[in-house]
Amino acid sequence: MRIPYQQFQQEFKRVLMTLDFPEAKAGQCATLFAENSRDGVYTHGLNRFPTFVGHVKASLVHPAEPELVETNGLVERWDGHLGPGPTNAATGMARAIALAGQHGLGCVALRNANHWMRGGTYGWQAAEAGCIGLCFTNTIANVTPWGGTDARLGNNPLVLAVPRAAGHLVLDMALSQYSFGKVSTYAAAHEALPVPGGYDQAGNLTTDAAEIMASQRGVPIGFWKGSGLALMLDVVLTALSGGRSTADITRSGQESGVSQCFICIRQPALHESVIEEMLRFTKSSPLGPGSAGIFYPGEQSLATRTANLAQGTPVNEAIWEQVLRM
Amino acid sequence: MRIPYQQFQQEFKRVLMTLDFPEAKAGQCATLFAENSRDGVYTHGLNRFPTFVGHVKASLVHPAEPELVETNGLVERWDGHLGPGPTNAATGMARAIALAGQHGLGCVALRNANHWMRGGTYGWQAAEAGCIGLCFTNTIANVTPWGGTDARLGNNPLVLAVPRAAGHLVLDMALSQYSFGKVSTYAAAHEALPVPGGYDQAGNLTTDAAEIMASQRGVPIGFWKGSGLALMLDVVLTALSGGRSTADITRSGQESGVSQCFICIRQPALHESVIEEMLRFTKSSPLGPGSAGIFYPGEQSLATRTANLAQGTPVNEAIWEQVLRM
Repeated sequence: MRIPYQQFQQEFKRVLMTLDFPEAKAGQCATLFAENSRDGVYTHGLNRFPTFVGHVKASLVHPAEPELVETNGLVERWDGHLGPGPTNAATGMARAIALAGQHGLGCVALRNANHWMRGGTYGWQAAEAGCIGLCFTNTIANVTPWGGTDARLGNNPLVLAVPRAAGHLVLDMALSQYSFGKVSTYAAAHEALPVPGGYDQAGNLTTDAAEIMASQRGVPIGFWKGSGLALMLDVVLTALSGGRSTADITRSGQESGVSQCFICIRQPALHESVIEEMLRFTKSSPLGPGSAGIFYPGEQSLATRTANLAQGTPVNEAIWEQVLRM
Repeated sequence: MRIPYQQFQQEFKRVLMTLDFPEAKAGQCATLFAENSRDGVYTHGLNRFPTFVGHVKASLVHPAEPELVETNGLVERWDGHLGPGPTNAATGMARAIALAGQHGLGCVALRNANHWMRGGTYGWQAAEAGCIGLCFTNTIANVTPWGGTDARLGNNPLVLAVPRAAGHLVLDMALSQYSFGKVSTYAAAHEALPVPGGYDQAGNLTTDAAEIMASQRGVPIGFWKGSGLALMLDVVLTALSGGRSTADITRSGQESGVSQCFICIRQPALHESVIEEMLRFTKSSPLGPGSAGIFYPGEQSLATRTANLAQGTPVNEAIWEQVLRM
């Protein structure tokens, strides 16, 4: 079953207005969820919407506005007041875009934010505005530090975007090699992961998804390298925003009140012809066995978006029915 | 054999002055090489100095000054005029520090730069000046893009630093899982790599160092993730600096004239007590089998620096003799 993008947006907006979201905020939040499904990130679009509604009902997410609390040159500190993750994050990136439009560069640190759903959303937003965009968030601890056995680091997604006429370049990556959702899908299918994703219970690196589910020891990308990067991003976020660290979030037991950072750079010329040449060079490698191709970050999202706009977005019917009944 | 830090600096300076480096530049460049050995990065200190001297003699590196060529708000574009990598990079970071001191934020893009040796140097520089520092460089192609078989991406080292009274946090990581230098060390010792570092000639992921040396197919950190990040950093560098991309550098056959970027953020308060708590939390995980501990980025460099300042820095005697004879 496929649903037009606009229909998602309208249903999400209708539901959010029943939850006391002002109409404009309900509309913006609905658009962000609908776009995530449209671009193929179903896990953070329709499929996540019922959970988000549950968080609003449980007062983990409030229909609040973010607020500028401190300015230091071109670095601003905002408080998200536990508002909706997607609209807070979009406001943070919009403000970084505005600063970069005036000064070439801008940085917004946001505390008391909530899960921003698909991080790539804010990369696309920056690129659409003609900016190089960088943003990152912390999360509850779900990754093992190098040398340790227990989750002490967030997977702290990192987004980097560069505008491009023929399709923006948007990298959106969590710092875990796999999400536990992905590992559990492989475990249920009794399939091995394509690359090692964690440890078995004896502490050996493995591609056995069931063993990783049992040990709950996922690895960060690059092992010691991603372990260091996850810690550093969390430190930068907390230092700049004055908000909660992964340690604080984890102790609270709820992934709420996270910290985020949005940085934009705007330059008059981005040397587009050189970028095209770089993409051609990268794609000119022979393909490995079983390879479907060499893609730039964002390429497959754009292809999915184009297909879903033309044909409608595929839905999980049970979840769609659930939203219609809300 | 151990040599005091000052003795390195004096010998390096003496040699550089014989190569027509002005005294101040010779002194600064000598200090940067000496500090790399002092901090335990011997590969990019003494051990690299003869190669650097060779590059100066071959006119791949000139005793030139970097020049500001364009200003757009707080983003500056500089031309390194193929000057010494370490002094050019230190100038770039110094300028980003100055911009951040005035405006909270600053960005310097540098084209026609050269190999900056240890990237962490410029992270320590930013942190010592009280700034959060971020810098990255491109390189010649030495990493395989995800889905491909041949080197098309640089390992594009990324540095992120946060100042801290008890020891700065400085992450300095190339985006390859291992350098080929490290892989060849394992291959020579007939030892397996601790984690998969590349592909064998049949295209299977492997920890067999000899197989990876034979295939020359190293993997980026996080496989598809690091592949995307390496490409994005190269695009950002080229777009901002107007300099050479990994594609251009690779076609030239020489790792010269690279592109670099230096970003600083300066904030009045960095919530140090929260950072200490984050480090305690991360280190509180039980240790895995064979683990020597959980370390924050920069912790082991600082320990090595302290030891080497007290006892002198260990040297490869053949290389030291070679420098003395220069």
